[in-house]
Amino acid sequence: MLVSDYYRSAFSTRYGSNDMRVIWSESYKRSCWRELWLAHLAAQTQQGLAPQWAYDRVFNYLSALSDGSKAQAHLDAVVNLENTTRHDVVAELDVLRETTRVPYLHAGMTSSDVTDNIDVYRSMESMKLLMSRVKALSSGLHDAKKDMQGIWVDGYTHLQKARPVSLGGRFACYAQEVFIAEIQMTTAMSTMRGKGVKGPVGNYGSMLELGWTLEQAKAIEARVMSSLRLSCWPIASQTYPRIQDYTLLTSLATMAAALHKMAFDFRLMQSPGFGRILEEDFGPGQVGSSAMPEKRNPIMAENICSLCRYISVLPQVAWENAANQGLERTLDDSANRRIILPEAFLAMDEILIKAQVLIYGMSVHAC
Amino acid sequence: MLVSDYYRSAFSTRYGSNDMRVIWSESYKRSCWRELWLAHLAAQTQQGLAPQWAYDRVFNYLSALSDGSKAQAHLDAVVNLENTTRHDVVAELDVLRETTRVPYLHAGMTSSDVTDNIDVYRSMESMKLLMSRVKALSSGLHDAKKDMQGIWVDGYTHLQKARPVSLGGRFACYAQEVFIAEIQMTTAMSTMRGKGVKGPVGNYGSMLELGWTLEQAKAIEARVMSSLRLSCWPIASQTYPRIQDYTLLTSLATMAAALHKMAFDFRLMQSPGFGRILEEDFGPGQVGSSAMPEKRNPIMAENICSLCRYISVLPQVAWENAANQGLERTLDDSANRRIILPEAFLAMDEILIKAQVLIYGMSVHAC
Amino acid sequence: MLVSDYYRSAFSTRYGSNDMRVIWSESYKRSCWRELWLAHLAAQTQQGLAPQWAYDRVFNYLSALSDGSKAQAHLDAVVNLENTTRHDVVAELDVLRETTRVPYLHAGMTSSDVTDNIDVYRSMESMKLLMSRVKALSSGLHDAKKDMQGIWVDGYTHLQKARPVSLGGRFACYAQEVFIAEIQMTTAMSTMRGKGVKGPVGNYGSMLELGWTLEQAKAIEARVMSSLRLSCWPIASQTYPRIQDYTLLTSLATMAAALHKMAFDFRLMQSPGFGRILEEDFGPGQVGSSAMPEKRNPIMAENICSLCRYISVLPQVAWENAANQGLERTLDDSANRRIILPEAFLAMDEILIKAQVLIYGMSVHAC
Amino acid sequence: MLVSDYYRSAFSTRYGSNDMRVIWSESYKRSCWRELWLAHLAAQTQQGLAPQWAYDRVFNYLSALSDGSKAQAHLDAVVNLENTTRHDVVAELDVLRETTRVPYLHAGMTSSDVTDNIDVYRSMESMKLLMSRVKALSSGLHDAKKDMQGIWVDGYTHLQKARPVSLGGRFACYAQEVFIAEIQMTTAMSTMRGKGVKGPVGNYGSMLELGWTLEQAKAIEARVMSSLRLSCWPIASQTYPRIQDYTLLTSLATMAAALHKMAFDFRLMQSPGFGRILEEDFGPGQVGSSAMPEKRNPIMAENICSLCRYISVLPQVAWENAANQGLERTLDDSANRRIILPEAFLAMDEILIKAQVLIYGMSVHAC
Repeated sequence: MLVSDYYRSAFSTRYGSNDMRVIWSESYKRSCWRELWLAHLAAQTQQGLAPQWAYDRVFNYLSALSDGSKAQAHLDAVVNLENTTRHDVVAELDVLRETTRVPYLHAGMTSSDVTDNIDVYRSMESMKLLMSRVKALSSGLHDAKKDMQGIWVDGYTHLQKARPVSLGGRFACYAQEVFIAEIQMTTAMSTMRGKGVKGPVGNYGSMLELGWTLEQAKAIEARVMSSLRLSCWPIASQTYPRIQDYTLLTSLATMAAALHKMAFDFRLMQSPGFGRILEEDFGPGQVGSSAMPEKRNPIMAENICSLCRYISVLPQVAWENAANQGLERTLDDSANRRIILPEAFLAMDEILIKAQVLIYGMSVHAC
Repeated sequence: MLVSDYYRSAFSTRYGSNDMRVIWSESYKRSCWRELWLAHLAAQTQQGLAPQWAYDRVFNYLSALSDGSKAQAHLDAVVNLENTTRHDVVAELDVLRETTRVPYLHAGMTSSDVTDNIDVYRSMESMKLLMSRVKALSSGLHDAKKDMQGIWVDGYTHLQKARPVSLGGRFACYAQEVFIAEIQMTTAMSTMRGKGVKGPVGNYGSMLELGWTLEQAKAIEARVMSSLRLSCWPIASQTYPRIQDYTLLTSLATMAAALHKMAFDFRLMQSPGFGRILEEDFGPGQVGSSAMPEKRNPIMAENICSLCRYISVLPQVAWENAANQGLERTLDDSANRRIILPEAFLAMDEILIKAQVLIYGMSVHAC
Repeated sequence: MLVSDYYRSAFSTRYGSNDMRVIWSESYKRSCWRELWLAHLAAQTQQGLAPQWAYDRVFNYLSALSDGSKAQAHLDAVVNLENTTRHDVVAELDVLRETTRVPYLHAGMTSSDVTDNIDVYRSMESMKLLMSRVKALSSGLHDAKKDMQGIWVDGYTHLQKARPVSLGGRFACYAQEVFIAEIQMTTAMSTMRGKGVKGPVGNYGSMLELGWTLEQAKAIEARVMSSLRLSCWPIASQTYPRIQDYTLLTSLATMAAALHKMAFDFRLMQSPGFGRILEEDFGPGQVGSSAMPEKRNPIMAENICSLCRYISVLPQVAWENAANQGLERTLDDSANRRIILPEAFLAMDEILIKAQVLIYGMSVHAC
Repeated sequence: MLVSDYYRSAFSTRYGSNDMRVIWSESYKRSCWRELWLAHLAAQTQQGLAPQWAYDRVFNYLSALSDGSKAQAHLDAVVNLENTTRHDVVAELDVLRETTRVPYLHAGMTSSDVTDNIDVYRSMESMKLLMSRVKALSSGLHDAKKDMQGIWVDGYTHLQKARPVSLGGRFACYAQEVFIAEIQMTTAMSTMRGKGVKGPVGNYGSMLELGWTLEQAKAIEARVMSSLRLSCWPIASQTYPRIQDYTLLTSLATMAAALHKMAFDFRLMQSPGFGRILEEDFGPGQVGSSAMPEKRNPIMAENICSLCRYISVLPQVAWENAANQGLERTLDDSANRRIILPEAFLAMDEILIKAQVLIYGMSVHAC
């Protein structure tokens, strides 16, 4: 509902696509956790460390959750437990254990074996969605560049008239900046890895205590990570190295810098002062302002700039998290990661959607 | 619902009080807008610029919205219109005008005469709520300081043992830092003002065109602001000066610095390495970690640090908004203000609640 | 020398006044330290805790340092010692002790009783210098506001033409924003205090061990602070509360936001697109660009924006310092405070100087 | 001199190596500019667009500058001119032109063809120097990892005792984080490119006006860039894309995050609370504090943390520069780039030097 009685983030309603909102929903996160536990059980079975019936029972239970009433019952039990334990992973796990009576679940694992891998998994899903939008935007910019190659306008340095430039040349600059940022995003994706399944403090110690060999523990880890289509860090403390979040967010902030510059230029080029050579697409019935309804304000470009600025500060939070992690882990990253990860993706999602609409819908009025 | 199928911000569910969530709800914001229009109409009536029946008709319409079905009908009409106009203020206003057939509504005003004043109003409400929590925290710290005056522990500089200090001395430092931050918050509140009702570009020009005198326009403005219990800036462009947001957010970030330092100390003092002289209150049934349930992790203090870091970066967004406002206004502030204002308040709300629970619930184990 | 063979900061050569560069020189800092030790000795004498000859001997030694060759001998001795001890305060102190053979120097004190108070002292000197520039700028803006009251130009919202505004109205907005920022600076100054002379861990313990009474220790502290014309915090750990640096830097960043907005407007108003209604003063022989020497680029306004951005990020460093101070003190603030404090002042110094030149020197071309 | 009468940056005296300070000296910068003009002249000669004597004359003049008195005469002339023109590039160029009477110098170029390429050149030199230090640090960490593989200590999560870990495992984590950051630095280097020699607004228009063909202009550009051993962007506006600075600085900030985390751990591990299992090397005669000289404070690790924090905020300045560049270029980046580029490199230089000393010099006291 658009108009709620309690605070709802603009990212739940206004900014970002539903596809992105699903990835960062509580519901999807928990279903990913459960799938990870199932994959872990499958891996134990394969190593002869858990019986087939254990896997079957959990598999059947999870399959049954596609039935709405069973899903609701599961959820009720979890919420009930979580109110006491104040620990979401433990609540999900305990309900799963109690209802299936399978003891092998989560064997040797610690919470962050679940949460960290799924956070990376969802980050990767998000990056893939964003990259598809980057490709579309890039293609739009290249088309625009070609179409406008022959259109010459006044160039401006220091916002003062300089030599003439072709509008196509400007769009070539935007396309190139997007390309530079795309490289950062691609590099971030290619170096992204999960924690793996290494147990508390990250050294497989808890698995060895269960009587598993190190080879078995690593084989199980490999199997679980492969089910997530993720690599894992060869080494981890209790968590994956938190500078990965910084790398990820700076790659988005790089794109945000490129698109803020482009959108700022669009705002200038829509201004009568710079010849009003561009015009955003206005929907029929769309209103400029309450006082001057016929005004053609560059609100899409302004919105892009605004969200880019929000993204620009989020890497600093990730930096502080990474820099201040003490020894095997501290939890001073947890609360803010619930916000900065999804919102960086949702903001960039909205920016890329708007940038694409802008590029494809704008009119050019240079003569 | 705790577990949703789409992204829901942690500030809608986990962090912050319901009181704060109401202030920043869409529903409350729009009811404030409508009250402002009504106050504006009352002021016009008082100046003899609008007839009494106009005020009565709008008053009656708004009163009727306390009836659920009428509220829903209003809302449906607004949402319907907003899908076309893509402008929330215009949609609310047009429905109000069409249903009441009162032409005097919003006379001479521009959107930001509505939105800016209500943003400041809600910010002020938020600050008052936070200040009540600061007072309670302060009082808790002063009590703790007195209780612990005679408890001597090892002092630490560079995390190395130094001369002994009294635990009361440490709490006196926390109380003093909170007091410094409180001064900043008080100063921010005392300098906070609304835009007033000055019309587009902020010079009452649109009111003069209606045939009002400047005195009438200023009298109407004064009456409206008084209904909001706010002062207004003597001078404004189309908006209130955006550095006010920066001042507000840095006052919260100052408090965040003070409480991060305190919570960081609490984490050290809960560590066995520093004598485990403090211990957070653990709820019955609360669980330490999935692997070591009996562990007593300082998760409240860690949470505080985490949210403080999020707040610490938000002033930079407000800075960029203020610094880059072009001429009478640009809209590059709009999208991110929907996030940074409520979330700074909600994060600080949660931090202060947690800090209070921490102070009142902790055990001291120094001998 | 302008062209050096090693890195020299732009703040040593280009940006900021010599007055400000003296305040933040190594030489001035050390002479302040020595004066503080002398004041401390005077206070001990007054309390009957040190003999008059001790004071006289140090007084005479310090007076003699106005002689160049003695100053050089002192310096050589200090530098020589510092190479071994790697501790600047200890080196200064040891030379002073050895040459004067006065044992009462630094009695009961710790380094930060010296450095912290002098840092605050120099910050206060800097704020006073900046405030005199703010006053001059303010006065220039008020004059400009009056001169331009009758000059009407196109108003712009969203960089689109809106209703007309008077140029005086715009300058009134700038003056008001400067006033808002001035309040922040004034508040920062009025709440600034030194650490006092409280010894290690800040509880006068080391003074009590010398056999002083608490009253004597506090009387000595009061006398020392009075010689610096500073208040001191009633409570301190080993250092003054580091959020004071944050408060100070955010007050400068508030001014930077106000002046970036003003300078950005000036850049727009100098653009032909917005009517070229303002023009910066160009010195005779000054060159626009190497390719188009006759261009009138708004380089002073651009410079202001550039330095404002640098200031805008410095509070975050102070925030991290304050937030992460562990227990009685950690030294993770030391290295970066050598940079962020002087450079924030020097950058603001340059900005205010340039802003003043800009206001007083510009031509208005609106008709 | 250590103790100067005016502000001298800690980066001119305390932090960073002389090698890095030379790269960012005014003197080196200007000699690079002159070499670029010479290379440009060589390229014109090769294309038959300038006579051999022109090249010879400039070559001879520049060679003669190795003679101190001639260098001084050159410098005096430049400084003299710069006082009038207020434009460093124009001053250097005019002196060069006047003394050699060679008109082909700077033909078709604009200032940023000189400054931008040399800024990238110096950034690349800096990155190479830093990378050599990263390699040495990495190697030290790998050695430490091996040496400490068998040393088991208490693991800590939430600063609470958790399962045991090997000290080697901790160092493996540090080595891996350094490796992650090294990838970012390598990527930044491999994507770094100069602007090229494209003239004002970046489209070779000024070269075509000289009667050159586009092929000739591009051949000259290629030759100049090859003399700098740099690639160039295929497309540029008047400057190289400023997000390149952001990418560069975030790569350094990534390393800063990794080393802050490592140094923070070292500070904890040197604390008696965590078993004092590490100890920094103390020079003979080095002093802990003025009050407790025998204390073993982890000041190198604290220094690293402090400088890392300074680096952490610099990318935000580069972000704002890149995001707010208007059309072909604005100069709002210039003043702050004089600071953030050299100081990010100098701070990282110091951090890496200190980290290496720390790793190689520390003692391990775990049993």
